[in-house]
Amino acid sequence: MISERLGALGLVLPRVFPPAGNYLGCVVDDGLLYIGGHGPIDGEHLVRGKVGGDLSLEQGRNAARLTALSILATMQEELGDLDRIERIVKVFGMVNVAPGFVQIPAVVDGCSDLLVEVFGEAGRHTRSAVGLAELPFDIAVEIELIARVRVD
Amino acid sequence: MISERLGALGLVLPRVFPPAGNYLGCVVDDGLLYIGGHGPIDGEHLVRGKVGGDLSLEQGRNAARLTALSILATMQEELGDLDRIERIVKVFGMVNVAPGFVQIPAVVDGCSDLLVEVFGEAGRHTRSAVGLAELPFDIAVEIELIARVRVD
Amino acid sequence: MISERLGALGLVLPRVFPPAGNYLGCVVDDGLLYIGGHGPIDGEHLVRGKVGGDLSLEQGRNAARLTALSILATMQEELGDLDRIERIVKVFGMVNVAPGFVQIPAVVDGCSDLLVEVFGEAGRHTRSAVGLAELPFDIAVEIELIARVRVD
Repeated sequence: MISERLGALGLVLPRVFPPAGNYLGCVVDDGLLYIGGHGPIDGEHLVRGKVGGDLSLEQGRNAARLTALSILATMQEELGDLDRIERIVKVFGMVNVAPGFVQIPAVVDGCSDLLVEVFGEAGRHTRSAVGLAELPFDIAVEIELIARVRVD
Repeated sequence: MISERLGALGLVLPRVFPPAGNYLGCVVDDGLLYIGGHGPIDGEHLVRGKVGGDLSLEQGRNAARLTALSILATMQEELGDLDRIERIVKVFGMVNVAPGFVQIPAVVDGCSDLLVEVFGEAGRHTRSAVGLAELPFDIAVEIELIARVRVD
Repeated sequence: MISERLGALGLVLPRVFPPAGNYLGCVVDDGLLYIGGHGPIDGEHLVRGKVGGDLSLEQGRNAARLTALSILATMQEELGDLDRIERIVKVFGMVNVAPGFVQIPAVVDGCSDLLVEVFGEAGRHTRSAVGLAELPFDIAVEIELIARVRVD
């Protein structure tokens, strides 16, 4: 069970982060779960700043990991049970970059690594990773994804 | 009926905007309508410029609203009837930002608000919103979306 | 057959490019092939630099064409046979832009044109094209796409 796996990994899901506008955190359509853009939350705070400037590569990678945890919290609330995730299909990782910072895949690996730790083979996904000029509220990373869910 | 709803809201759809290259404005695949990147059209002109620089937040939000209307025009042409939209699933809103402009969700709400006004609950969607370095022809906003359609 | 079409066009697919992190080059889910972000490979080298600065529009367009070839190589490896592509549904083209470069659709046409040359009508797709602040390893173009595949 994924809940046991989270415990074994020492992971605690954050509170579900409320959408920052007139939209939903996720939508399920025909067996696919579309997760909208999530950001990194550390306790009560958003992790802000430009990776390669305000933040180091390691701090950026950790922000991507925190973003994945926030996504898991949204999934849990929507599905009731993370065991209903059949497969992570696709991740789109957007990094708030300082000019010239191009180690973008290493940052987004913070999310991808966590998904594989939690879901195992079912967590392996395809991905794009890019460097954005600005992100909402200057968050360090924004990630959206698509997952296949079991329809009971 | 959505056409009556548009009338009640005083909304008039613009002409369908032709693609800016070798692609289609939208594709229907297996009950999903994929709308490619659309921009804001005000009468005969594209709305251009960087939000937070050339354009204010309010002007950016209005550009996102105009972009939603252009998307509705493409949907109408493709489907014949906007009542065939069963659900807006996902919106990806990309804002042409001046350096340091991070109120990106408030801009993209211009699109999301319009979709909810027009489609009601069926217009509620998940979303990502990001700040781009440059957009085609310097348009202020570019938005793509995925919708579920009724197959009659 | 697509392999004959490639030969007639004088196109040779490059080697499959390995993912740059903890992800897969593509995933097939329920008849859709999701191709993650690919970049332009010229022989053994990635094509790097900002379009409109380090690279001309024509060089950018060629980078998009090379990216499409790299995507075809990944498709071929995944599917065994490019004839299993039923339809290219959607392309997302991300260009590494110098400040002020806005001829983004003309760059991404390098990919779209190739897809139509190779697949004919089945290659026609919807699309978004945007200008990114930075791309991984400073590659000139990054493209992801979704295609419908025949399930035999």
